[in-house]
Amino acid sequence: MSLVIVGSIALDSIKTPFGEVEKALGGSAMYASLASSNFVKTHIVGVVGEDFPIEHIDLLKENDICCKGLKTVPGNTFHWKGVYNDLNKAETLETHLNVFADFNPELPPEYRKSKYVFLGNIDPVLQLRVLDQMENPGITACDTMNFWISGKKEELMEVIKRVDILFINEDEIKMLTGEQNVFSAAETACSYGPKYLIIKRGEYGSMAVSKDFLFFVPVYPIKKVIDPTGAGDCFAGGFMGYLASMDRSDKETIKNAMIYGTVTASFDVESFSLEKIKGIDKDMIEIRKEKIKKSMKF
Amino acid sequence: MSLVIVGSIALDSIKTPFGEVEKALGGSAMYASLASSNFVKTHIVGVVGEDFPIEHIDLLKENDICCKGLKTVPGNTFHWKGVYNDLNKAETLETHLNVFADFNPELPPEYRKSKYVFLGNIDPVLQLRVLDQMENPGITACDTMNFWISGKKEELMEVIKRVDILFINEDEIKMLTGEQNVFSAAETACSYGPKYLIIKRGEYGSMAVSKDFLFFVPVYPIKKVIDPTGAGDCFAGGFMGYLASMDRSDKETIKNAMIYGTVTASFDVESFSLEKIKGIDKDMIEIRKEKIKKSMKF
Repeated sequence: MSLVIVGSIALDSIKTPFGEVEKALGGSAMYASLASSNFVKTHIVGVVGEDFPIEHIDLLKENDICCKGLKTVPGNTFHWKGVYNDLNKAETLETHLNVFADFNPELPPEYRKSKYVFLGNIDPVLQLRVLDQMENPGITACDTMNFWISGKKEELMEVIKRVDILFINEDEIKMLTGEQNVFSAAETACSYGPKYLIIKRGEYGSMAVSKDFLFFVPVYPIKKVIDPTGAGDCFAGGFMGYLASMDRSDKETIKNAMIYGTVTASFDVESFSLEKIKGIDKDMIEIRKEKIKKSMKF
Repeated sequence: MSLVIVGSIALDSIKTPFGEVEKALGGSAMYASLASSNFVKTHIVGVVGEDFPIEHIDLLKENDICCKGLKTVPGNTFHWKGVYNDLNKAETLETHLNVFADFNPELPPEYRKSKYVFLGNIDPVLQLRVLDQMENPGITACDTMNFWISGKKEELMEVIKRVDILFINEDEIKMLTGEQNVFSAAETACSYGPKYLIIKRGEYGSMAVSKDFLFFVPVYPIKKVIDPTGAGDCFAGGFMGYLASMDRSDKETIKNAMIYGTVTASFDVESFSLEKIKGIDKDMIEIRKEKIKKSMKF
């Protein structure tokens, strides 16, 4: 099995109470792909500029991530600058889309045959174009954000109708549905089409919801969160990577995918950029998985 | 076995997005006792004024709650007036301590022999006086609030040192310890003395922490929260009532107590005052307990 991941690739300048980095590797597709590569052969789709350091592409290759869908074009790479005064909320200082402004994801032929795809948080119009290119989609999943919910709701609803799994955070699902109660919001969003909603609740963990299913997972207890950037993407990448590796999407597999997503996200928040997550291995993942399971087990 | 519960008894005027009530029955000891009485013989300690409606005392007696520790004195009952513009945060409009200003809990002789006591959120000086009256305490527990953390920290630390279980919400434990990360805060608070911390996280559930133990419980999924007043007290009452009924405090019993606390709190938030919780029975509790367990089970 294999997983195709489409999303942004960025150079991020980030400041948190624990330090700062300048033009460090980031972007939803980078975080999700590194997380996913621990579980399954991963194919990345994205665009970078000529300023993109070659060692970042080497990092993908070292992790056996296929880069045929990664385009380098004239111009600069997407650059985001943000600050976290409190670790729960990023404040954007600057956004330079650069080459990402003209991103038009084109899947290499072998990617199109993949059964599994994760559409990171990009314009829903582009997410639809990716779905159209998949020849035999099995499990499709997407992420989104408030910007698209308010700006391109019609197109986003079309994406949501077509995917099997919607990753969304708690504020976003309330905004999407107009419901203030998360359980009511989940019920409403289930009626939009996806088989599963995966609602991300930051430091409070996550919940999986379908019409006849509700499952909660707490976070892995990290005592010092350095930088939460990319945690949601690592969650989705770990989740989808595990799912694709199992080639199943029954409830027990979804439950385990929630745990693996939680574990990969837990490594992400312990460092800036991908510093920590790029060094993890299966044993490290399994140790944390067992600890989370223990914290919710009778 | 039996449980002694000490705390406030109040007449609350509350407004939420779903309605309002005037001088409805409330107070930490009331909520906790009604919740606890589903599990174990409960003895309440508190004070009310001459304006306190007799039917509220009848309600306690109908639930087999011993009222020997409930004093009626000249004056008016403690009155709190608050509004929830959003359901996560109460805004106090008026506080009239009335007879509660001179509350000095005195335990009837048979109460003093009880092994289990829950000290609701009152002045830590009074909490200490209650502990001094217990002749053979087995498991002691207390709740508190930001007002005492900032105003009477020394006395509160003395209470925390002496009790086995500290019920505290997330903001309060951060305030108590000066730690911004809840897991670091929990580690620090464990060193203050209590065997278990039960950290209440509102709509995100709760966690139990000890030096070698971490356990998370989600909330029961309520789609329409009418009034969250008393949820923390019902949680503690259900928790302690179950613990006392089992006469054990090993880890498995603590885990089950967390679930029973969660369930009793879930009934509380579905109505104003004690309207819903006063009508629950063992079967209703067990149904929700199984549903919560299912939502966290592999």
